[in-house]
Amino acid sequence: MIIQLQPGIAPKQKESIQQKVNSLGYKTTNVITQEGEYLIGIGKSDIDIRELGGLDGVSDIHRVSDGYKLVSRKWKVRPTSINLGDGVKICEGDFAIMSGPCSIESEEQIVSVLQHLKDNGVQIMRGGVYKPRSSPYAFRGLGVEGLKIWYQHAQEFGIKIITEVMQSSQIEDLCKYADILQVGARNSQNFNLLDALGEVDKPVMLKRGISGSLDELLQCAEYVFSGGNEKLLLCERGIRSYETAYRNTFDLNAIPILKEKTHLPVIADPSHGIGLRAYVEPMALAAVMAGADGVIYESHAVPEKAFSDGQQTLNFAESDELIRKIRATVALRKSF
Amino acid sequence: MIIQLQPGIAPKQKESIQQKVNSLGYKTTNVITQEGEYLIGIGKSDIDIRELGGLDGVSDIHRVSDGYKLVSRKWKVRPTSINLGDGVKICEGDFAIMSGPCSIESEEQIVSVLQHLKDNGVQIMRGGVYKPRSSPYAFRGLGVEGLKIWYQHAQEFGIKIITEVMQSSQIEDLCKYADILQVGARNSQNFNLLDALGEVDKPVMLKRGISGSLDELLQCAEYVFSGGNEKLLLCERGIRSYETAYRNTFDLNAIPILKEKTHLPVIADPSHGIGLRAYVEPMALAAVMAGADGVIYESHAVPEKAFSDGQQTLNFAESDELIRKIRATVALRKSF
Amino acid sequence: MIIQLQPGIAPKQKESIQQKVNSLGYKTTNVITQEGEYLIGIGKSDIDIRELGGLDGVSDIHRVSDGYKLVSRKWKVRPTSINLGDGVKICEGDFAIMSGPCSIESEEQIVSVLQHLKDNGVQIMRGGVYKPRSSPYAFRGLGVEGLKIWYQHAQEFGIKIITEVMQSSQIEDLCKYADILQVGARNSQNFNLLDALGEVDKPVMLKRGISGSLDELLQCAEYVFSGGNEKLLLCERGIRSYETAYRNTFDLNAIPILKEKTHLPVIADPSHGIGLRAYVEPMALAAVMAGADGVIYESHAVPEKAFSDGQQTLNFAESDELIRKIRATVALRKSF
Amino acid sequence: MIIQLQPGIAPKQKESIQQKVNSLGYKTTNVITQEGEYLIGIGKSDIDIRELGGLDGVSDIHRVSDGYKLVSRKWKVRPTSINLGDGVKICEGDFAIMSGPCSIESEEQIVSVLQHLKDNGVQIMRGGVYKPRSSPYAFRGLGVEGLKIWYQHAQEFGIKIITEVMQSSQIEDLCKYADILQVGARNSQNFNLLDALGEVDKPVMLKRGISGSLDELLQCAEYVFSGGNEKLLLCERGIRSYETAYRNTFDLNAIPILKEKTHLPVIADPSHGIGLRAYVEPMALAAVMAGADGVIYESHAVPEKAFSDGQQTLNFAESDELIRKIRATVALRKSF
Repeated sequence: MIIQLQPGIAPKQKESIQQKVNSLGYKTTNVITQEGEYLIGIGKSDIDIRELGGLDGVSDIHRVSDGYKLVSRKWKVRPTSINLGDGVKICEGDFAIMSGPCSIESEEQIVSVLQHLKDNGVQIMRGGVYKPRSSPYAFRGLGVEGLKIWYQHAQEFGIKIITEVMQSSQIEDLCKYADILQVGARNSQNFNLLDALGEVDKPVMLKRGISGSLDELLQCAEYVFSGGNEKLLLCERGIRSYETAYRNTFDLNAIPILKEKTHLPVIADPSHGIGLRAYVEPMALAAVMAGADGVIYESHAVPEKAFSDGQQTLNFAESDELIRKIRATVALRKSF
Repeated sequence: MIIQLQPGIAPKQKESIQQKVNSLGYKTTNVITQEGEYLIGIGKSDIDIRELGGLDGVSDIHRVSDGYKLVSRKWKVRPTSINLGDGVKICEGDFAIMSGPCSIESEEQIVSVLQHLKDNGVQIMRGGVYKPRSSPYAFRGLGVEGLKIWYQHAQEFGIKIITEVMQSSQIEDLCKYADILQVGARNSQNFNLLDALGEVDKPVMLKRGISGSLDELLQCAEYVFSGGNEKLLLCERGIRSYETAYRNTFDLNAIPILKEKTHLPVIADPSHGIGLRAYVEPMALAAVMAGADGVIYESHAVPEKAFSDGQQTLNFAESDELIRKIRATVALRKSF
Repeated sequence: MIIQLQPGIAPKQKESIQQKVNSLGYKTTNVITQEGEYLIGIGKSDIDIRELGGLDGVSDIHRVSDGYKLVSRKWKVRPTSINLGDGVKICEGDFAIMSGPCSIESEEQIVSVLQHLKDNGVQIMRGGVYKPRSSPYAFRGLGVEGLKIWYQHAQEFGIKIITEVMQSSQIEDLCKYADILQVGARNSQNFNLLDALGEVDKPVMLKRGISGSLDELLQCAEYVFSGGNEKLLLCERGIRSYETAYRNTFDLNAIPILKEKTHLPVIADPSHGIGLRAYVEPMALAAVMAGADGVIYESHAVPEKAFSDGQQTLNFAESDELIRKIRATVALRKSF
Repeated sequence: MIIQLQPGIAPKQKESIQQKVNSLGYKTTNVITQEGEYLIGIGKSDIDIRELGGLDGVSDIHRVSDGYKLVSRKWKVRPTSINLGDGVKICEGDFAIMSGPCSIESEEQIVSVLQHLKDNGVQIMRGGVYKPRSSPYAFRGLGVEGLKIWYQHAQEFGIKIITEVMQSSQIEDLCKYADILQVGARNSQNFNLLDALGEVDKPVMLKRGISGSLDELLQCAEYVFSGGNEKLLLCERGIRSYETAYRNTFDLNAIPILKEKTHLPVIADPSHGIGLRAYVEPMALAAVMAGADGVIYESHAVPEKAFSDGQQTLNFAESDELIRKIRATVALRKSF
């Protein structure tokens, strides 16, 4: 149960509502976000919610029986729009394209990608400066120094930055230079990191875990939201299955189902999803038709020389082509 | 290794080629299909295939190292076209739509679907008269009697029939009245049934097994092909995963990968794929962009009253809408 | 709902019971097995079953809400014992060992295995004469001719035969020479084959499907049972997962859970289960402690030369050792 | 390639070895643990390792082609023994039992479990003070305050403590009061946490990820080891599969395979593994026969009242029984 409180509610009034709800057999959590204030009631009592709806200080009230509450579309029907400033938005109806290399490697590489994106009117660049790697002996990213250089050039090009955060201690630095913080599949259920991101005033994109259920993904989003940060995006990036013909099983079923369950934007990552360059294009276009609100994919001037993930990265010619086809497909979808 | 023999090759000549190939360390299987004659060589010797290419009676020769041979695109680059007669074809470039109920239930139901398809210019109707059911106590289909009635009406409407075959003893009857025999997911590796279908002069559509790998699906197709029947279609219909938010995990990754591996047409079944009516449309359109050669989905005048699978079946209004959108999406894909 | 009818019930009486049950909102199926006669009621009505229990001709009545009925332990608490004659039994409390090659290859091979089993007091030999193979070009077994030779020698050694049946047309021959017919993982949901096996007076062992759920396995058993044949065994043989360190994921969780759900004996197949010779022993012993009623594993004089599955087959020295340890482990389990 | 350096090697000598190895086409990482010093060479050159073996300062050299190196049994054949002090050890040959509640709840609860363990001669108690929970609204543990109380009583009883660490900032406190730090399944690939644990002088137990491959688990161990901490244990706790009859698919296949791949002790967690109280006993005993070096399971005076995981927790009578049977089974295994 979500009890939406009136803005500027008096502490005493809030306490009295809380006591009332507790007396009905619900445990309550008080959630204060950058946008509003809520009481979350957890319990199984079969009460008439109108009884609570009439209380002073209550703005609205919703029954949500799922494990997640505030990220549910049962409560908030209007889709969440993520505003990155300078007119860049990610929201239902529009379609966001994010592209760039797996890892940030050098100033030259950064500039080449920025130019490629600008030429195509793409407003958000992806890239990793902290890289989660299976082996401790592999390249782990350029860190904050790489990010600073990237930031400088991205500013010049007027392009926004999305990059991965791996632990709480990186948040402060990342917030200075990045526009969206991404939580990777392996940290999908790193609850302390999610808690810390709840306190941040930056958009956060959560990737589905390697074998994450949709319900778990939504509960992870609930962590960040109930921690105070409503600026959330979800990302389908492939799940683990028995099939070895591709790196991951890009699960497009997740797209329409998440769109129905939550008001948050849903992004598709075909690069990690299928993990094979030749098939990134069809899977990206399929994601558009499945209803995604955006796509994030890997591009690089010379994928064969990329420090990581080259096998699933498009070169600029392929990327040009893909962007053109995505836009035509989005236009068709909108026409329906 | 595939050795394509010249039409009308003399038995002696064939024997001499076979001896030569055996002497190089290969086991050979002689395959005679309705279209041609081949020697399949299985082995690991590192030979110069040109040595064999020059032999009398050899028309062409190809190295194919996969478990499947004759269904591989490495050998036959030109896509296979399935001709159902009366101008109805399934092939790459075109896009086939097949629709109809899960189970054939009654004459009235048959006619209502045929009319719906005809109104939309759809040329192939699906429906089951033999139904594989998890429980022995569930409805198992009307059998050949239902098929005869269906056939009669389908003839009138000029619409082709695709229906499931569950065991060899049904083949004779089905061949009389159906245009495509479908092998269901549960019989995907019923090798005796595949052998029997190799001897038939009817197109066969093989569904991927419930946890079938793409390699296994192609080897199942190899069974039918090497048994003599080249008229094959493959169908992606969802695999089993840990996720419970949908019935199956419709695996669109399979589409572009199968298209590259084989010359056979690849069909998508979003109804079984995701198993939830509300999401059949986005998944069907996604399948088009992923590169499918056709789609098969369930429709019924009143899905809520269907004998089986109602929860994943479209009503006619939804089906009208889907057909219109499929055609627009196919048109866009062709324009790329 | 299972209504157990009195032996020799008059047709009229049965009809009257059936009408009564139907009138309460249940669909009924009349099941006549080699052991008894039942009415299976499918429906959701909330009736007082005592009302039916008092009817003339009703011997007993049980509510079973699962998809499977007659194979449920909720109905029949006493474990099913499979009697192979000559004092050979498979049942709870005892522990059955079955061993032998993947494929029957030659008279010499047959005799060597029979001797090995006899030396160890093992009473049941496994071996395939019809082999389901992924590739149509692989060895498919010696067929009924191989079985006849096997039968002759097995008779001499006083050892029982378990072998796989792949299609209905093989049943007649197999019944002459085999003591248990095995349905393989790939035919697990071949419902026509299951129907046909319901009419046979021979024990049948059903292997779990490659991604078969326990519920599906039990419903497959229900097919055979409701077809008339109560002599059933179930077999866990590994499921498909994402892990590639072993051939299949031998799922020992299935053992205690099946033991609770059904009265049928539960057999473990560690050879297919883990698929790697070095680990067959620990997995077999683990299966004993998990509560299996028997084990089936592959053995061969020279596994390296076996026609199939050599990588998961024990040689006789390893098999001697395993049998000794199994018996010690069974003895410990019984002592608890 | 692992180059084991001589104790007290001079920096100059080390540098010269490193240069030599680099010149052969290998990238090197210098690893200094609490036990020794190593150069890890990553590359594909085909060199004669004896050439390096003769260099001054090199103690030994091993070729290990897997992704993990220092945790491989190919290098270190002797099993790693974890010494917790006061005569408590975890190592191959012995068998460690660890038990206790899912969550630490109260002083009374702590003492009841300690008494139960002491009565049974169990030397290690498990319990969570930081709890990873799917929902942000669930109980998250008593934190370090709970741990302090636990520590005080555990000292009195002479019992060691294993508890979960969720983020780097908790390590300092946990090291004061706990004897083994456990990394949970959800943090299995939290590489920053693994890095931080490499710098700690405390044993660390790594649980397999929810869909973690054995190779990934070993590479996670490599993170901690190459960070400096050789005191590692691995734990199988069930993987995610399609089957819904149990909470997780306890994967006993992992036990013998990990035992062959690594020199680290391998622990089995049947409570999380199968997730259902009634089956913890058979799965624990199966784990013994599969070759585990220890078992960790959940126990509580009144499982029905446990704050978390009650459905998979044994009461003390069940736990008494299980310990007795584990010991008898271990004795049998040793006798083989």
